[in-house]
Amino acid sequence: MPIREIELEGHIIDSGVLPKVFNTILDKGGDFEVLEFDIGKRKKDKSYARLRVEGDDETHLDKIISQIHRQGARLPEIEEVDLKEAKSDQTPPRNFYTTTNHKTWIRYNDIWKKVKKIEMDCAIVLEDGEAYCKPINEIKKGNKVVVGENGIRVVPPERPREKSVFEFMGSHVSPEKPSETIIQQLAEKMKEIKEKGGKIGFVLGPAVIHTGCAEEVAELVKNGFIDVLLGGNAIAAHDIERAMYGTSLGINLEKVEPETKGHRNHLYAISEVMRSGSIKEAIEDGKIKEGIMYECIQNDVEYVLAGSIRDDGPLPKVITDTQKAQHKMRKAVRGVDLMIMMATTLHSIATGNILPSYVKTVCVDISQSTVTELTDRGSAQAMGIVTDVGTFIPMLNDKLFN
Amino acid sequence: MPIREIELEGHIIDSGVLPKVFNTILDKGGDFEVLEFDIGKRKKDKSYARLRVEGDDETHLDKIISQIHRQGARLPEIEEVDLKEAKSDQTPPRNFYTTTNHKTWIRYNDIWKKVKKIEMDCAIVLEDGEAYCKPINEIKKGNKVVVGENGIRVVPPERPREKSVFEFMGSHVSPEKPSETIIQQLAEKMKEIKEKGGKIGFVLGPAVIHTGCAEEVAELVKNGFIDVLLGGNAIAAHDIERAMYGTSLGINLEKVEPETKGHRNHLYAISEVMRSGSIKEAIEDGKIKEGIMYECIQNDVEYVLAGSIRDDGPLPKVITDTQKAQHKMRKAVRGVDLMIMMATTLHSIATGNILPSYVKTVCVDISQSTVTELTDRGSAQAMGIVTDVGTFIPMLNDKLFN
Amino acid sequence: MPIREIELEGHIIDSGVLPKVFNTILDKGGDFEVLEFDIGKRKKDKSYARLRVEGDDETHLDKIISQIHRQGARLPEIEEVDLKEAKSDQTPPRNFYTTTNHKTWIRYNDIWKKVKKIEMDCAIVLEDGEAYCKPINEIKKGNKVVVGENGIRVVPPERPREKSVFEFMGSHVSPEKPSETIIQQLAEKMKEIKEKGGKIGFVLGPAVIHTGCAEEVAELVKNGFIDVLLGGNAIAAHDIERAMYGTSLGINLEKVEPETKGHRNHLYAISEVMRSGSIKEAIEDGKIKEGIMYECIQNDVEYVLAGSIRDDGPLPKVITDTQKAQHKMRKAVRGVDLMIMMATTLHSIATGNILPSYVKTVCVDISQSTVTELTDRGSAQAMGIVTDVGTFIPMLNDKLFN
Amino acid sequence: MPIREIELEGHIIDSGVLPKVFNTILDKGGDFEVLEFDIGKRKKDKSYARLRVEGDDETHLDKIISQIHRQGARLPEIEEVDLKEAKSDQTPPRNFYTTTNHKTWIRYNDIWKKVKKIEMDCAIVLEDGEAYCKPINEIKKGNKVVVGENGIRVVPPERPREKSVFEFMGSHVSPEKPSETIIQQLAEKMKEIKEKGGKIGFVLGPAVIHTGCAEEVAELVKNGFIDVLLGGNAIAAHDIERAMYGTSLGINLEKVEPETKGHRNHLYAISEVMRSGSIKEAIEDGKIKEGIMYECIQNDVEYVLAGSIRDDGPLPKVITDTQKAQHKMRKAVRGVDLMIMMATTLHSIATGNILPSYVKTVCVDISQSTVTELTDRGSAQAMGIVTDVGTFIPMLNDKLFN
Repeated sequence: MPIREIELEGHIIDSGVLPKVFNTILDKGGDFEVLEFDIGKRKKDKSYARLRVEGDDETHLDKIISQIHRQGARLPEIEEVDLKEAKSDQTPPRNFYTTTNHKTWIRYNDIWKKVKKIEMDCAIVLEDGEAYCKPINEIKKGNKVVVGENGIRVVPPERPREKSVFEFMGSHVSPEKPSETIIQQLAEKMKEIKEKGGKIGFVLGPAVIHTGCAEEVAELVKNGFIDVLLGGNAIAAHDIERAMYGTSLGINLEKVEPETKGHRNHLYAISEVMRSGSIKEAIEDGKIKEGIMYECIQNDVEYVLAGSIRDDGPLPKVITDTQKAQHKMRKAVRGVDLMIMMATTLHSIATGNILPSYVKTVCVDISQSTVTELTDRGSAQAMGIVTDVGTFIPMLNDKLFN
Repeated sequence: MPIREIELEGHIIDSGVLPKVFNTILDKGGDFEVLEFDIGKRKKDKSYARLRVEGDDETHLDKIISQIHRQGARLPEIEEVDLKEAKSDQTPPRNFYTTTNHKTWIRYNDIWKKVKKIEMDCAIVLEDGEAYCKPINEIKKGNKVVVGENGIRVVPPERPREKSVFEFMGSHVSPEKPSETIIQQLAEKMKEIKEKGGKIGFVLGPAVIHTGCAEEVAELVKNGFIDVLLGGNAIAAHDIERAMYGTSLGINLEKVEPETKGHRNHLYAISEVMRSGSIKEAIEDGKIKEGIMYECIQNDVEYVLAGSIRDDGPLPKVITDTQKAQHKMRKAVRGVDLMIMMATTLHSIATGNILPSYVKTVCVDISQSTVTELTDRGSAQAMGIVTDVGTFIPMLNDKLFN
Repeated sequence: MPIREIELEGHIIDSGVLPKVFNTILDKGGDFEVLEFDIGKRKKDKSYARLRVEGDDETHLDKIISQIHRQGARLPEIEEVDLKEAKSDQTPPRNFYTTTNHKTWIRYNDIWKKVKKIEMDCAIVLEDGEAYCKPINEIKKGNKVVVGENGIRVVPPERPREKSVFEFMGSHVSPEKPSETIIQQLAEKMKEIKEKGGKIGFVLGPAVIHTGCAEEVAELVKNGFIDVLLGGNAIAAHDIERAMYGTSLGINLEKVEPETKGHRNHLYAISEVMRSGSIKEAIEDGKIKEGIMYECIQNDVEYVLAGSIRDDGPLPKVITDTQKAQHKMRKAVRGVDLMIMMATTLHSIATGNILPSYVKTVCVDISQSTVTELTDRGSAQAMGIVTDVGTFIPMLNDKLFN
Repeated sequence: MPIREIELEGHIIDSGVLPKVFNTILDKGGDFEVLEFDIGKRKKDKSYARLRVEGDDETHLDKIISQIHRQGARLPEIEEVDLKEAKSDQTPPRNFYTTTNHKTWIRYNDIWKKVKKIEMDCAIVLEDGEAYCKPINEIKKGNKVVVGENGIRVVPPERPREKSVFEFMGSHVSPEKPSETIIQQLAEKMKEIKEKGGKIGFVLGPAVIHTGCAEEVAELVKNGFIDVLLGGNAIAAHDIERAMYGTSLGINLEKVEPETKGHRNHLYAISEVMRSGSIKEAIEDGKIKEGIMYECIQNDVEYVLAGSIRDDGPLPKVITDTQKAQHKMRKAVRGVDLMIMMATTLHSIATGNILPSYVKTVCVDISQSTVTELTDRGSAQAMGIVTDVGTFIPMLNDKLFN
């Protein structure tokens, strides 16, 4: 039976790497022998393990190695990465390596090079001596693309040595947690990030407006707590509808009752912006005097409005091409330290897809299954809060500003 | 083909009575002729309709009449109610009339008598010249029980002539509503009821404690906003656990992290109360110094703790017999003007079952399907709010007290 | 106080039109007097009502009239429709009429013209003597656009005179309904439509593949039960992944366990199609030999794959521009008699948005709140089934084919 | 700083015991040193670890030790268990040991005694030289109760060395799994258990009847696949309603439409059983001729019907005292190898509470959050299936019988 040696290093027990590797081998029906095991004696010490993995045949073994490699196992013999040229645009060579969202290095010319812009489900391209993560539709003819698994190292994020709300919360999504204390802790984290000059991104769905929180979010923008805003046509359209007419989907937000002719307001708001040419020009024309989009533009906050097939209108500057929108979102999320995603499944998943595993994310939604889906990213960096954005945001503002 | 005349009176169009009757006849494959129709000319005027209903045969017609009778149709010929004696305990005579939760009258000795303590799925018993609604397990041998449908009038609640948050909210359960404004309106309703000397009941599940709102609910009790508290062993046990140890299910509510040995606190709290003999005595022994149960007892607020098969312990005074608990709940809800039900399906449904349709109810839960189930009572008096109790309650208190 | 007369005609009581109009007037704080009321004496007879509506002032009255007009009220005096030219592309004139999804007529040159391609939240344009419903971004400079509400008639769908599963089911979304019987009835409805030469559309999300139903859906296509297929990149990519590698998101669907290297299969499948150039060419290259997309292409079934920002790849022919995708979906749904929407919120809502209210829709999803949202279209034509597509589809096939 | 040694043995890496212990120490802010670590070289070999754990002070250390002790850590020095007498009924001594649901031994007279009838959140009592797990309300005055943590060993279930559907499924609750294959695997597991003479229990909610599966479940009883049935008044009442009248909550299950006078059927069914005296006598009287309860009684299948405050009636033999019901459920679940829980939160949680962690459980529900809550028992033995019981059960029967 064929065998192969692998090694693991780091806080591999408490971060779950070693258990995962063992489980994978068991699940696949493989076998192993522990050749060397050097456990970190104290909590700051790293551990080291060397295993001999056995499969039924080469294909079987190969399958096992491939999976545990993605979990952080590495081959002790240092090999160079294998590269192959793409023969046409958007077509990586067969057997191209598909990325995880963990930090990744490739071995090239005897040097470990960190892969830039890492995100999951992409290819790795070597360009001008640098390694880049690229979605397959951005592959160009002639690109040197990494194939197979030689010379690649994947390093999953480790559990921090100190406790934090992210660890405890991340572990288990449930609505039955002390909401106010959690919001307090999130507010502190946000302040801490801003004090260190960090960047906070928000992904927002239109429910933020429907539940009556446009002013509070505008306040967050104004006070510098939102560096990047990701959303769709709906959040902007309803925000502008509210700013113009005081309604959201025709419901008067002060009186909680349908405004007459309110059904038109959504379309009329979009139409007024179209008439001005853009949101910015509508502001200059005095049509929009408050709200989230207003504050974003007044405070030069970067925003990306990505189109979807549900859109009415859409507003000018909504990027109707989904691939272009993805591209702009990728640029916008660079350097974000904390991404807070609220009340939108589509935009949150799209954002989650393009973030590396080491970026902290907080997902806030009223649906437990949505939160579970979004936080299940194999990382202790994702925290889920099952709550109502309509009460969550005012309380967050209260903790931030009072 | 057999026919029968029925009549309808009141705000039968906008309250949906006439449309429902028409729909029922259509659904059952019957036919009708409108013999007389006197529409209320102005919004305060009542309407009157007299219909001839036709069925395929007597059985078919009978089935149609029976259903529309429950929707408010009455037979113009005035008949006496039919009574029959129960031959043994808990056994109403065959063909006994099963109640709706709407106001009901029976015709006895040429007088329309209002049925007291009306609730759904019960029988009607005539005792000492008065009509009572009784659950079938309270029927005694010899009780005179109403059978058939002669001489019975059912009056569904009408849509109020003026608009109110209950109408708009009741119509459609959705998490995408302006939370803060709704809470503001509920707070005003609560103040209005208390100013008029009305009674407010609360049905509470343990999530109220887990989400960190024990102090806020205690504050509501202290300030007289809770006249009756319905719940189970869990809400009381976790409230007392928090009062004694600062934890809920072992989670420290201030730090949002599991307290060590916290798993024991729940049982230890129950055990300490058992040692004292009762919650009241545990307070006297100085073991419990704050919290919901503490305030209920200090302020003489009526509470019913009903047992369930999930209970640990249970605490002394938890009524482990479910029929006895139902009986006590029935007494407790008499005279309540507004029932607010939060974060418990079991206790909320049980309470909904014993309330007449004219009592206003507000159901607050994070699960939309739970709220839908609970507010679907065929009445404009039920309002559902899909939100997180952990943020809802602090905001409610803020609106009530500030 | 200003007054205005309106009239209503049809099965206005049981279809809920009259109660809705009364409720709207009450909600808005208006008043009314019934001037004439001619109730349909028998169940096939139509009713007629003439009302005088009163508002506080012209603006108030105008608001009331505007809303009840959309519910089917019409002004007895016959007026011509008002038209105004659009001054630039994508910019309808101010005060343009926004459509409902109900059948609509406009009065032009003394003739009632039916508005073609009706869907909600659009404008009405008169072109070559015909009235068309157009989304605002398709308005061209110089288009004659309907403004105000004069000369417009809206006719909401009426409750059918005979009972049907759509009526009963549509009334109340709940998972607690007899699944097998409902599936039986849906199968019969589908057969009936096909026998009459009707068209059935399906909107499908990728969960159809993940839950193991690709073969069953392919069978539906093969047997002519799917005339139009709407979906996104994911359904096609996972269908092809399964056809090529037997996995869905890397999970082996026969053994319910993660296939090794399975994580790659999704991207490899997309990449193989890219290499061939299109799904069709990939079939010709012998890469795809079964599945939903295979059967659609082999059987010339129309499909629209609309892009979203969540997409990997995407596959060739996925329409990445959301406005172009909407446009293609609009064309594809013309003439569909029954639209079955499964396991996708995004595509189902987008499809619901472009369908007239008289097209029957069935929404199948495991989330009750998704089903509620999708069926809440103010029409008895929408039926919701809360179930698991993974068991629903095999049972549907069983009822259709056995 | 105080220290204490602990040891761990078994498949402590892949079963997650060692990572959990490390995480707990980190979470609590403690420190550790690994004194000895003997990793199992091959997959069948057990590992052994000896750690020195450090806390800030005795209380802190004590808290850490207490928690990791429950996770399987044991103290190497062998101590006798500490016992203390209960001074009154229902009142265990202060500091009594509260159980986990894992296999547990106590050291008494130099012998390790296995604790019988282990379940979570109870006390341990020594009686006639045997150790029993007892709920606190069954403690009698004079009982010798285990206090503290000396001389106690907890052994969490280990991950089986071979792969199984329970492991894969248990890991992650999601509706997006291949339903039919999972049902196939469950059917095989059920057959395997029955072939080995094992026992299968079912916990059923009334939705089983509402969704139209009464006959299928009756079939399961008849064919010996249900050895124990746990439920409430509702499942029995609706089953009997269906057997007598063909309806469930008044809905005709064949035609999916409300039966006229159907609203009565539920109460009439209960009433008829009361008239006969019991379900058994109602069968003898010829009133009930089919259904789940019928088959249970005809085939001598044990059932427990536990009362709740939602009950109408209730039926004779429903145990209205929740503590008595719990007691009977405890007896009924002894020896069950597989517990299948469907469509009831209350009864499923109550059953989960009294089961040891090594009993396999399958939870089937349409609500993902219910399934997550029920399967989150810290054990690889709990598998969750998010599906519709109305389609699941017919498919299960199909796999079992065809």
